[in-house]
Amino acid sequence: MTARLLDTEEVALPFREEVARRIRDEGLRLKLAGLLVAGSSKPSHVYARYADAACKQVGIEFDLREVERLAIEDEIRRANDDPSVHGLLVFYPVFDGERDHYVKEIVDPRKDLEGLGSQYSFNLYNDIRWLGGDESKKSIIPCTPLALIKILEHLQVYRRRPDDSDPRPSLHGRTVVIVNRSEVVGRPLAAMLAHDGARVHSIDIDGCQLMDGGTVTECHETLEDSLPAAEVVVTGVPDKTWRLPASGVRSDAVLINFSSWAIIPDEAIDKAAVFVSGPGRVTVAMALRNLLRLYDNFHSGTTG
Amino acid sequence: MTARLLDTEEVALPFREEVARRIRDEGLRLKLAGLLVAGSSKPSHVYARYADAACKQVGIEFDLREVERLAIEDEIRRANDDPSVHGLLVFYPVFDGERDHYVKEIVDPRKDLEGLGSQYSFNLYNDIRWLGGDESKKSIIPCTPLALIKILEHLQVYRRRPDDSDPRPSLHGRTVVIVNRSEVVGRPLAAMLAHDGARVHSIDIDGCQLMDGGTVTECHETLEDSLPAAEVVVTGVPDKTWRLPASGVRSDAVLINFSSWAIIPDEAIDKAAVFVSGPGRVTVAMALRNLLRLYDNFHSGTTG
Repeated sequence: MTARLLDTEEVALPFREEVARRIRDEGLRLKLAGLLVAGSSKPSHVYARYADAACKQVGIEFDLREVERLAIEDEIRRANDDPSVHGLLVFYPVFDGERDHYVKEIVDPRKDLEGLGSQYSFNLYNDIRWLGGDESKKSIIPCTPLALIKILEHLQVYRRRPDDSDPRPSLHGRTVVIVNRSEVVGRPLAAMLAHDGARVHSIDIDGCQLMDGGTVTECHETLEDSLPAAEVVVTGVPDKTWRLPASGVRSDAVLINFSSWAIIPDEAIDKAAVFVSGPGRVTVAMALRNLLRLYDNFHSGTTG
Repeated sequence: MTARLLDTEEVALPFREEVARRIRDEGLRLKLAGLLVAGSSKPSHVYARYADAACKQVGIEFDLREVERLAIEDEIRRANDDPSVHGLLVFYPVFDGERDHYVKEIVDPRKDLEGLGSQYSFNLYNDIRWLGGDESKKSIIPCTPLALIKILEHLQVYRRRPDDSDPRPSLHGRTVVIVNRSEVVGRPLAAMLAHDGARVHSIDIDGCQLMDGGTVTECHETLEDSLPAAEVVVTGVPDKTWRLPASGVRSDAVLINFSSWAIIPDEAIDKAAVFVSGPGRVTVAMALRNLLRLYDNFHSGTTG
């Protein structure tokens, strides 16, 4: 037995089609500006190329600007002030984590395609799903964590509550292990899954945190201890030599790796039910979807 | 010959006296809340102890709360909502750079003693000295970079412009080397000194950036190349084995180290005019001064 390899195009395609349909039916002319700094790492170039291809498929103009690192602030300001730009996608890292946080704050929230500004982060961590209490304006969620959630929905890890108390599918009763606690993917994903009812073991080199309902506690379980309970295991580890231990992996587990390198060994994949080797296509589809969301929230009526 | 060692108490004392005088004359009852997480590093504990001592000297209540790391958000919210608290001092690092940035954004700007929220950072980097265009409300500047500027003012590195075009003392014609480009000290300091007219070589392990007037460019000088021009050298290097090369140090140079360990060797100190072994006392005086500024900006009339 070995895990089924999920074809993420199955997940991405309906979202791209929905974006393409709206653009066609409403005659929208949307422009996404991409800022890629000179000397960026390979994953940024790959993401930019995928974004370009996906924009072409759905009829969005993708204007990729390659800029010098020290010109990034001026370029962001220019895009902020340009009424023809509906969304801005900066390919991080530009500098380092600390300074990039400052860069993220300069992006106008009305063009913040990945929802990386503090207003959106605050909403995400506090389970506030709307902007300023206006239920016609949905908050913006970073593309990779959102893609991972869409993959779990597609795989029906989300399910109806046994007591039918809430009609929305939930992760109530599910246990998730996330090996990554970055502010870009691991922690926002953990928070959203916990808000949706999951019991989340958030693991990084500093140890384990357990997120359950609204509470977060330090826990003393190792990854090996946590795996036998986990119906979902998500990994994103910067150390290319790290490997997921296979021994505790469940036979009904969904394994998802969002690192750009293979860190889930064959022995683990052989034991699990489903393997997702990278959410990239879905991430890009979420970027297009977020562009429409920014349009609906802030630019509606300015195009077409 | 060897450099004069600056007694930073000379710089700090007048600021503490000014704060004490206002508190006494106006009958102010101010409370500063400090949040120190369990397991913090030694520098955080030292800073907390100094802040406690300085508050006692000037008549400010310092309420130090030792909290579990995962409780930090709730504690910040509690202090934000507590009308008896006029300023909040969080001793970083709490988590890591990335996540701490999120924590900094949760602090209410009206209580952000170190001006670490993005509104204040934006003002600092863009030389906006007032809040929302209101010239009665000064923006808040992080305590260590502000302390370093007060030290340079005290040492009369700031001077009148030769053409008397502007009555404010300036750094026009001065060259400064800063070995550190963190978002907490090195980069804000570099930006402020450049706004004040200095030519700043901002150096870290990624190389050198030259800040001159409003422009920032990558430069290809090494530290050794830069030192012969530098009237001021500021160092803050996380690597405890790093040492400032002594060879290029000028005989009229001011050397300031803000690391918690000695990284300026005796040979460099022997060559220079003034040595400052740490701005700690001035940093704490700036924290008290910032508390008064928060009071003037946001809480005036609510105490006394």
